[in-house]
Amino acid sequence: MEPHDLDDAELRDRAVAAARGKSAFDLLIRGGIVADVECGEFRSLDVGVVGPIIASVHPRHSRDDAGKTLEVAGLIVSPGLIDSHMHIESSMVLPSAYAKAVVSRGVTTAVWDPHEFGNVAGLPGIQFALDAAAESGLRILTLAPSCVPSAPGYETAGADFGPETVSDLLNRPEIAGLAEVMDMSGVIARESRLRGIVQAGLQSGKLVCGHARGLDGSSLQAYAAAGVQSDHEITSASDLRAKLLAGLTIELRGSHPHLLPECAKALQSLTEFPSTITLCTDDVFPDELEEKGGVNETVRLLVSSGLSPIRALRAATANAAIRLGRRDLGIIAPGRRADIAIFRDLERFEAVHVLCNGRRPSFGTVAESNGLAPVSDRGRLEPKDFEITATGPTARVATIDKPRFTSWSERRVPVINGHLKPDDDMLRIAVIHRHGNPRTRPRVGFLTGWGRWDGAFATTVSHDSHNLTVFGSRTTDMALAANTAIESRGGLAVASSGKVLANLPLPVAGLVSTGPVSEVAASFRKVRAAMDNVADWRPPYLVFKALFGATLACNPGPHQTDLGIADPAEGVLLVSPIVEDGIGENVG
Amino acid sequence: MEPHDLDDAELRDRAVAAARGKSAFDLLIRGGIVADVECGEFRSLDVGVVGPIIASVHPRHSRDDAGKTLEVAGLIVSPGLIDSHMHIESSMVLPSAYAKAVVSRGVTTAVWDPHEFGNVAGLPGIQFALDAAAESGLRILTLAPSCVPSAPGYETAGADFGPETVSDLLNRPEIAGLAEVMDMSGVIARESRLRGIVQAGLQSGKLVCGHARGLDGSSLQAYAAAGVQSDHEITSASDLRAKLLAGLTIELRGSHPHLLPECAKALQSLTEFPSTITLCTDDVFPDELEEKGGVNETVRLLVSSGLSPIRALRAATANAAIRLGRRDLGIIAPGRRADIAIFRDLERFEAVHVLCNGRRPSFGTVAESNGLAPVSDRGRLEPKDFEITATGPTARVATIDKPRFTSWSERRVPVINGHLKPDDDMLRIAVIHRHGNPRTRPRVGFLTGWGRWDGAFATTVSHDSHNLTVFGSRTTDMALAANTAIESRGGLAVASSGKVLANLPLPVAGLVSTGPVSEVAASFRKVRAAMDNVADWRPPYLVFKALFGATLACNPGPHQTDLGIADPAEGVLLVSPIVEDGIGENVG
Repeated sequence: MEPHDLDDAELRDRAVAAARGKSAFDLLIRGGIVADVECGEFRSLDVGVVGPIIASVHPRHSRDDAGKTLEVAGLIVSPGLIDSHMHIESSMVLPSAYAKAVVSRGVTTAVWDPHEFGNVAGLPGIQFALDAAAESGLRILTLAPSCVPSAPGYETAGADFGPETVSDLLNRPEIAGLAEVMDMSGVIARESRLRGIVQAGLQSGKLVCGHARGLDGSSLQAYAAAGVQSDHEITSASDLRAKLLAGLTIELRGSHPHLLPECAKALQSLTEFPSTITLCTDDVFPDELEEKGGVNETVRLLVSSGLSPIRALRAATANAAIRLGRRDLGIIAPGRRADIAIFRDLERFEAVHVLCNGRRPSFGTVAESNGLAPVSDRGRLEPKDFEITATGPTARVATIDKPRFTSWSERRVPVINGHLKPDDDMLRIAVIHRHGNPRTRPRVGFLTGWGRWDGAFATTVSHDSHNLTVFGSRTTDMALAANTAIESRGGLAVASSGKVLANLPLPVAGLVSTGPVSEVAASFRKVRAAMDNVADWRPPYLVFKALFGATLACNPGPHQTDLGIADPAEGVLLVSPIVEDGIGENVG
Repeated sequence: MEPHDLDDAELRDRAVAAARGKSAFDLLIRGGIVADVECGEFRSLDVGVVGPIIASVHPRHSRDDAGKTLEVAGLIVSPGLIDSHMHIESSMVLPSAYAKAVVSRGVTTAVWDPHEFGNVAGLPGIQFALDAAAESGLRILTLAPSCVPSAPGYETAGADFGPETVSDLLNRPEIAGLAEVMDMSGVIARESRLRGIVQAGLQSGKLVCGHARGLDGSSLQAYAAAGVQSDHEITSASDLRAKLLAGLTIELRGSHPHLLPECAKALQSLTEFPSTITLCTDDVFPDELEEKGGVNETVRLLVSSGLSPIRALRAATANAAIRLGRRDLGIIAPGRRADIAIFRDLERFEAVHVLCNGRRPSFGTVAESNGLAPVSDRGRLEPKDFEITATGPTARVATIDKPRFTSWSERRVPVINGHLKPDDDMLRIAVIHRHGNPRTRPRVGFLTGWGRWDGAFATTVSHDSHNLTVFGSRTTDMALAANTAIESRGGLAVASSGKVLANLPLPVAGLVSTGPVSEVAASFRKVRAAMDNVADWRPPYLVFKALFGATLACNPGPHQTDLGIADPAEGVLLVSPIVEDGIGENVG
């Protein structure tokens, strides 16, 4: 994966000649303060660029011969930022639109796991991702998704990548490694599928990226012993320290900002700053992408939480380059790639200028959808599709308690007219297979600990199989929201009391819009605002974001999928939530 | 170059099972203090090993199930040390003997530039190096020599590696990269030979190692802009800082210990410790090898000079692994290679136990010479071979002033009986081609600033072409020393007043003995002691070691070679030191 564009002999001739003063630089960045992220210092130095290469870093104003000069007095000259783990699909735009939003903030490289496209659209989805990445204007290193689906046998995705498929992908030079291995229990149990996938990653010699949510003690040691190298699922400062000690490269993510103060404090207190700390975004919603950008915001949040600016920059530049095995990236020095972010200050990290390969960035046009399958053609759903038949007079049902860190619970509920009648604090969740047979019926379960709702939410973005998922307190609203999403050929919809409150169509694979960030962000904000009226959010875990992870069956605890309530670590799949029915006196 | 022995699926099965506590470790290292070199902390943790892999790093005494247990109460459990740059030939023993001496000190990996064998014996010399490295018992990463000879056109080596030869070597999977690019002026001037060689390094995607002696300012920027990535030729703390800023990986070497206090101070004062600091030995004489080992001594010296133990260890472990692109090396963590050095303390760094690939080390037998050519068969040299004919009554001669950092100087000397008669403070240096034509005559020059001698020294170890080099105050002693080295089929010899004071035969390529370290060290000590009587050493530069670098023509300033006095950076080669003769009144 080492790129060869910098190995051109004539380019090096030009760079050497310019460094020696025998010829002019193409571009001179003059008057700035260079962030020496390795030594932890800021230095008054000028930078001479030739083509895509930094040719010289020399004393301020010692050279003035250049085709162009960029005067940056008082500004911070930093290596371009590197996002070590993200899913563009979470921003609900195409890569070219994503690139525009983050490159302008100083992000010049990002590692993309296109596993949403993979789960929905299979190998054509990965090819679409590779093609779109190559034209985006951002240096995107694309990984081979490891978990399509995330919990095989417990959910149905639009594709199924076994070890051979993954190995074939890893053999492609444009694939940088194996993406986050989420099926942790499969890895640790040495199940043949995950064993084969992790081994394919090791044998490729490329990155083997992890997802070690909640792993500690012997499970964490086992996961690392299997060969997985990284983790972004940090849940606390002590979790961070345990994973550093386990030798994992940390992809500390900005998508869970409430954790960053304690992580910043832990990192700042370390005697030495590990090379194994990198930064990432993981998932950025469209409105956040428009307002704040990408991993630049993770840098800003960490610094505002007390991490020194140079440590934060080091994590997002030199350390990330080490992780990626990219000698051309990560520092401002002669012979390195001229990916440079010039920030106004070390608080807001607002990028004033950005260079990619020595040039001002340019972006691909926002591509049309390539016809990746959206939601299967299917008939409308009816309110009764969200009912669960039971015999009564009461039934004991399994419930999924709490968002994000789920656990099993139970309720005894009445049966009315042959259907379960959940309590007011129970929310219905229905998952409807959308990748094949259009006659598949919704699988319905119940959430507790999600507060009381006044309406419904439907989404075809629902990790990781992205089946159509519908949450609601009333089956009529659920049907309306679901049908709105289906008619949009995928997307998000909010309904309450018989009205559609907001709708964001996502016709590319039911995940992504072809529109620009501004348009998608505006619609997304309406959806978010509508949901603020429907749900009763309680941060940090009972939040809008929780809607998209409620079906992530590879994580510990029970999750609703298109096949039922799944708890793979315990080997449990309940097709129906009814544990026992026809019990007790008739209370109707 | 990523090794695949750790990618075995069944090995990983066993490691994961042991980490989970489902099966016992092969080896448990219990009660020690683990050096967490990334975070800069020491922690009370036990280490479970399965085969060549670390399976688990867990709380002290939390596990006791293991095939074997190594009790290490109170000892420091460190990753095995990595020597990022060295020449085994400098220790004058074969790799298996070298391995025994350093592995027992905690060195488990070393990067070898076999350019002495390359210069003397060409591609068969490199093949000999690769074969001997593979069987040595030390993990040796062998590089392709870049400078055979070091200054083409200014000296004659036993081989000539142009870009094609180097490229062919780099294409071999057992070659880890391009070795120190010493012809700095060739790189910066983009001479076609060096341009081609550096480009071959870049295109291989492997290491491109440097030798940036004395480079600063625009020359340093140009050298790095050409693509060279590292340097070990540090001459001061400010040189160190300039090279760090130039983005070079530093291979800070123990072979020039007088520099280490200022370097240790500079490194300890850095706000952050760069990942680009690694440690090396470069050249270790046989007696030092026996007494002190390898890069463990560099660690010890730096710590005794004020660098924190964890920074010194980080440089020699995790940072080196980063430099080498070896994810399996450098830290104590699950899934990594079980290369472990267990030290008694953090002052002397005396290794109590060493594990390579999870086992106690084993070594190859000391191989017989494979018949690499020693000194060419040639007749004896006579005292007159070391005379320089002139017409008198006086002559003006160019001299090479000062050891190590040489400069041009001149003297006017008398001519007696048709020969130059040097002043008492002028030392003769003669270099005699030994790789081909046995009738080649010595090229003789004069050194000044070397003090007054009482005798002569002959050596076939003479960087980098390793022609037979003879130093002396009297031509009779010079002939005696030279003939002793020739009769030994190469080696070192000291003579004074018609007697041979000491002699170390080095019959393998005229560089190396087949004997064990103890034997070679004993003979070497005698040579060194004899030379203490012949020369009047004045540290730090006028020292025994200077004898071996007096012909290193790629370095700045004049150096005597088999072709004359060479100063490649200035484009000068004087066949004879006589600048002007037949001048003045007859003073005889």
